[in-house]
Amino acid sequence: MKLIRFGSLGEEKPGIITDAGMFDVSAFGEDYGERFFETNGLVRLTEWWAANSNNCPKIAEGTRLGSCVARPSKIICIGLNYADHAKETNAAIPKEPIVFFKSTSSLVGPNDNLVIPRNSVKTDWEVELAVVIGKKASYVEEKDALQYVAGYSLHNDYSEREFQIERGGQWVKGKSCDTFAPLGPWMATQDEIENIDNLRLWLTVNGKKMQDGNTSNFIFKIPFVISYLSQFMTLLPGDVISTGTPAGVGLGFNPPVYLKAGDVVELGIDGLGTSKQTAVAWKQ
Amino acid sequence: MKLIRFGSLGEEKPGIITDAGMFDVSAFGEDYGERFFETNGLVRLTEWWAANSNNCPKIAEGTRLGSCVARPSKIICIGLNYADHAKETNAAIPKEPIVFFKSTSSLVGPNDNLVIPRNSVKTDWEVELAVVIGKKASYVEEKDALQYVAGYSLHNDYSEREFQIERGGQWVKGKSCDTFAPLGPWMATQDEIENIDNLRLWLTVNGKKMQDGNTSNFIFKIPFVISYLSQFMTLLPGDVISTGTPAGVGLGFNPPVYLKAGDVVELGIDGLGTSKQTAVAWKQ
Repeated sequence: MKLIRFGSLGEEKPGIITDAGMFDVSAFGEDYGERFFETNGLVRLTEWWAANSNNCPKIAEGTRLGSCVARPSKIICIGLNYADHAKETNAAIPKEPIVFFKSTSSLVGPNDNLVIPRNSVKTDWEVELAVVIGKKASYVEEKDALQYVAGYSLHNDYSEREFQIERGGQWVKGKSCDTFAPLGPWMATQDEIENIDNLRLWLTVNGKKMQDGNTSNFIFKIPFVISYLSQFMTLLPGDVISTGTPAGVGLGFNPPVYLKAGDVVELGIDGLGTSKQTAVAWKQ
Repeated sequence: MKLIRFGSLGEEKPGIITDAGMFDVSAFGEDYGERFFETNGLVRLTEWWAANSNNCPKIAEGTRLGSCVARPSKIICIGLNYADHAKETNAAIPKEPIVFFKSTSSLVGPNDNLVIPRNSVKTDWEVELAVVIGKKASYVEEKDALQYVAGYSLHNDYSEREFQIERGGQWVKGKSCDTFAPLGPWMATQDEIENIDNLRLWLTVNGKKMQDGNTSNFIFKIPFVISYLSQFMTLLPGDVISTGTPAGVGLGFNPPVYLKAGDVVELGIDGLGTSKQTAVAWKQ
């Protein structure tokens, strides 16, 4: 099953996307948030859909998509999880996952504009595979970790490199600006993805290929990452883990290349669709 | 006004504490979360209380208190914001605020047990003044910043130093364990605090004074911190900013001193009450 959310920012309704199009399932009565996932929502929705799909209105083409899941308790990101990206940023291959948070207020729809923050000159892109947690996970073993996954999605982990690296301390300052986390178009349940460890992911800027990687190059694979994180904090249903980006970010070029108003960023992952953001300048 | 939340973990109800005791205001019909604050809840509750206080049941002594605000979208912490604490941890005085996040799943009541995480040998304490945001704040100027404050509370920013410092990357791993953010007993609205820049804050372990500081020693004062953070991310109503800890954490001793099961931690801030956590070992 592929979950979408649609409508105005902050007023999104739940939907489903199939080969026949996008369908409004707001009659199911629940948004795709913590409560939905923790109460076995995916199974309940599947049953509901089987009985009610004929009565679900089609969503018009061109309707805005929101983040494919509702605002989670946390967005956890893994840094430097592809060897080629670690190399391009002159960072050592990490011995353990590098973990940071991104504010959940940065979450937007997959095709919303990217707002370049005020005073930003180093706004950068990062195509990433995001994992959505399906049930509460604390001290989970690696062998059991995939049981805690609701599904997967496409994420662009936008990053302001000056804020992240040159302003002192921790990375969170450069990761949390509004519109810095376009998530979607959809969340695919695990059964939709044949091999999570062999998905191509790519990103272009103004049509030029910048990133072209494959999840087969993960330094730390998803079950390990989930188990690892769950030793440090409780993962809640609906939480999002963004698993790192392959080579080809703007910071990695010599000289670095950053986004400016008018640039168009497109990205995709096998089986998880594509998204497209147009960069715009910040306005009061 | 002083807001409390009481009852079982995850099922807390809103209350108010006055000189006459603790009162159940669940009849007001709203928890102290994002929606309450963003819809002028403090003013509405004040009016409601004036009209209904006689009908509010008293809360029995010994009733568990929960976190004084409902789970926020984020807990933002400022690192090394007291010069004496920077010195004891051998860190330079920061030129700009050091910012990190703490998972919101770490939030608990002020007198709940501290669970020492599995495999932890370096669990440490940090008494801090927490600011609760009252309305959405983005690119706020320092002179206006206090208008965005709902109130203040007492926070113990528990920190696992090995997880934080020795496990690679960012601090969040050592800040986000369950029970690592006891918040309360109450949130005091701004009018309750005469001078936020002159509050004594202290912490004892097993009765021995470990921290004894004053907010007059902030490197970055609260209006600056709010304005600063709002340049990097949107602060949402109900969000919590923890403003850093004075000298006297376990890491600062030579050799360092960390918590073990059975230890009792007590802390307080002028006008914001006291809290008390007993350390217990992690159990499956």
